[in-house]
Amino acid sequence: MTAVAGTSDAPLLRAARGERVDRLPVWFMRQAGRSLPEYRALRVGVPMLDACMRPDLVIEITLQPVRRHGVDAAILFSDIVLPLKALGAELDIVPGVGPVIAHPIRDLAGVQALPEFDPGALSFVTEAVSGLVAELGETPLIGFAGAPYTLASYLIEGGPSKEHADTKALMRGAPDVWDALLSHLAEISGQFLRLQVEAGASAVQLFDSWAGGLAADDYRRHVLPHSAAVFGMVADLEVPRIHFGVATGEILTDMSTAGVEVMGVDWRVPLDEAARRIQAGQAVQGNLDPTLVFAPWDVIEAKTRDVVRRGGSATGHIVNLGHGVLPDTDPEVLTRIVDLVHSLDVPD
Amino acid sequence: MTAVAGTSDAPLLRAARGERVDRLPVWFMRQAGRSLPEYRALRVGVPMLDACMRPDLVIEITLQPVRRHGVDAAILFSDIVLPLKALGAELDIVPGVGPVIAHPIRDLAGVQALPEFDPGALSFVTEAVSGLVAELGETPLIGFAGAPYTLASYLIEGGPSKEHADTKALMRGAPDVWDALLSHLAEISGQFLRLQVEAGASAVQLFDSWAGGLAADDYRRHVLPHSAAVFGMVADLEVPRIHFGVATGEILTDMSTAGVEVMGVDWRVPLDEAARRIQAGQAVQGNLDPTLVFAPWDVIEAKTRDVVRRGGSATGHIVNLGHGVLPDTDPEVLTRIVDLVHSLDVPD
Repeated sequence: MTAVAGTSDAPLLRAARGERVDRLPVWFMRQAGRSLPEYRALRVGVPMLDACMRPDLVIEITLQPVRRHGVDAAILFSDIVLPLKALGAELDIVPGVGPVIAHPIRDLAGVQALPEFDPGALSFVTEAVSGLVAELGETPLIGFAGAPYTLASYLIEGGPSKEHADTKALMRGAPDVWDALLSHLAEISGQFLRLQVEAGASAVQLFDSWAGGLAADDYRRHVLPHSAAVFGMVADLEVPRIHFGVATGEILTDMSTAGVEVMGVDWRVPLDEAARRIQAGQAVQGNLDPTLVFAPWDVIEAKTRDVVRRGGSATGHIVNLGHGVLPDTDPEVLTRIVDLVHSLDVPD
Repeated sequence: MTAVAGTSDAPLLRAARGERVDRLPVWFMRQAGRSLPEYRALRVGVPMLDACMRPDLVIEITLQPVRRHGVDAAILFSDIVLPLKALGAELDIVPGVGPVIAHPIRDLAGVQALPEFDPGALSFVTEAVSGLVAELGETPLIGFAGAPYTLASYLIEGGPSKEHADTKALMRGAPDVWDALLSHLAEISGQFLRLQVEAGASAVQLFDSWAGGLAADDYRRHVLPHSAAVFGMVADLEVPRIHFGVATGEILTDMSTAGVEVMGVDWRVPLDEAARRIQAGQAVQGNLDPTLVFAPWDVIEAKTRDVVRRGGSATGHIVNLGHGVLPDTDPEVLTRIVDLVHSLDVPD
């Protein structure tokens, strides 16, 4: 497995490939975002999806946590619905709510009305990634996309949902519409990841945020083939592929068969147990509880050491939270965790 | 283990004790509630907690699903914050939001300001339970209470929360306040369950709705002892004790050690797997996906048969959903599921 020139010996990529590292790599999901005052300053008056479509802002926001924390990877500042928006879907991100879709999809006509992938509509991403790679030097950039199931849940529900009742109703009641929708979304996510890697990203992460709400039999039958299709579309690019969702303990084994090198693990499954559930030779990423940052430092340190120790059971370990950075997080605590992780011996 | 006279041979209690049953018992969490038009009619103009404190309404609402669906148990119509409210805590249930607390608890003074258990303040519950038992005849009534962790999360956050960040911060940062709070809540929940059993309830269920958001080490250290204290307080009453939470796959084994006869299982963990995780001789309760009711009947039937088949791995099985009935559920589908379950052979 190769990587973008300049980053191939980066700890994150070595760990993802299961090679020995001199120090453990660490980054944080949502590290670029509301926990940083310099981010909040940049975003004043700029709606979320507008920020994601301006290469100057994307570059600056993506770099902020790398500069501040010294993390071992940047992740493209974006949103999982961004490619759909850029391709022309009628949706927006409403502050305090989340993605909201003008016309929820419930039938085949709705699926057929979705835009096709068009690299021309995403040239701002290519521009941002190219600019970032030039700035980042030896620090890898992770490209990212939303998984078909999670994207579908937004398109079907029309917005955030706790139970995903309409999503599951369509999944069970209209398998033809379901497969058409998820196939279409897999094509967009796969092409979107390709575009990011071709512009210089050194790894990719597919976020299936809500997959953990599915029982394993539903996941295997209705979702896994589509996530596997996304990973298949970037297989020839030979960059590490990371797969992540929340509350995925019961489907971790299935998710790990989608064609990935690294399995993201939320804070519920200890990493030694996660290592037993995933495929041989795969690395793990995670899994500090995002709320741990609000604890006294001695509790944070003990837990971080425990996560690092347990992560030693896997072929490789990329230290991260088990979900995104919470907005109220004190960024100085994140920096301190980075320093701690970098100071620790790598488990044998 | 004995039970209230008249109900001791009820399928639900036999299954909970691991005895052979002629037909599988089935009931639904939140069966008394918004899915029923007769419930919505009764609740017009009556706030939730007011309804819970009027014995006439509690009796009628609790009986509605028994009459309509022919389920094998009634569960007292109430809310997990009801005893706190009745004892004098300043809280309310805001429609569309959930429990909201006037003064969130953050310190020992807040804990000390909580009301003490006082059976006199809960005489309406005794009255409702007595009236219900007279009406229900051979159908058991399940008493219920919220577990200390879930109650604490409402009291600390001040309302519903997705991440429970303040709750976990207090748990990790102020263990003395934490233990005082959870001990106090355990006392109230335990006494509240005792009161219901002494008034005639044949079983109890402790709802720890949010415990599944905790990693197992946090659960074991900070939560399990307090839940075990609740169950310990009703151990001498010799009624089956049911324990339930959502997304609890990683803590199911720990939860099953709290002193219980029946483990509730959400829809993520298949019941044959759940049976492997819990203690020998325990029964399982669950675990149909609450969104399954929106599927075509052939999908519902196949899944129900699969749940019943897998439930045969445990010592006993009480069929139920893996979480509460969703408000949009068509009650006729629930009745049809009851009829299906009652028509199935009990697995060997």
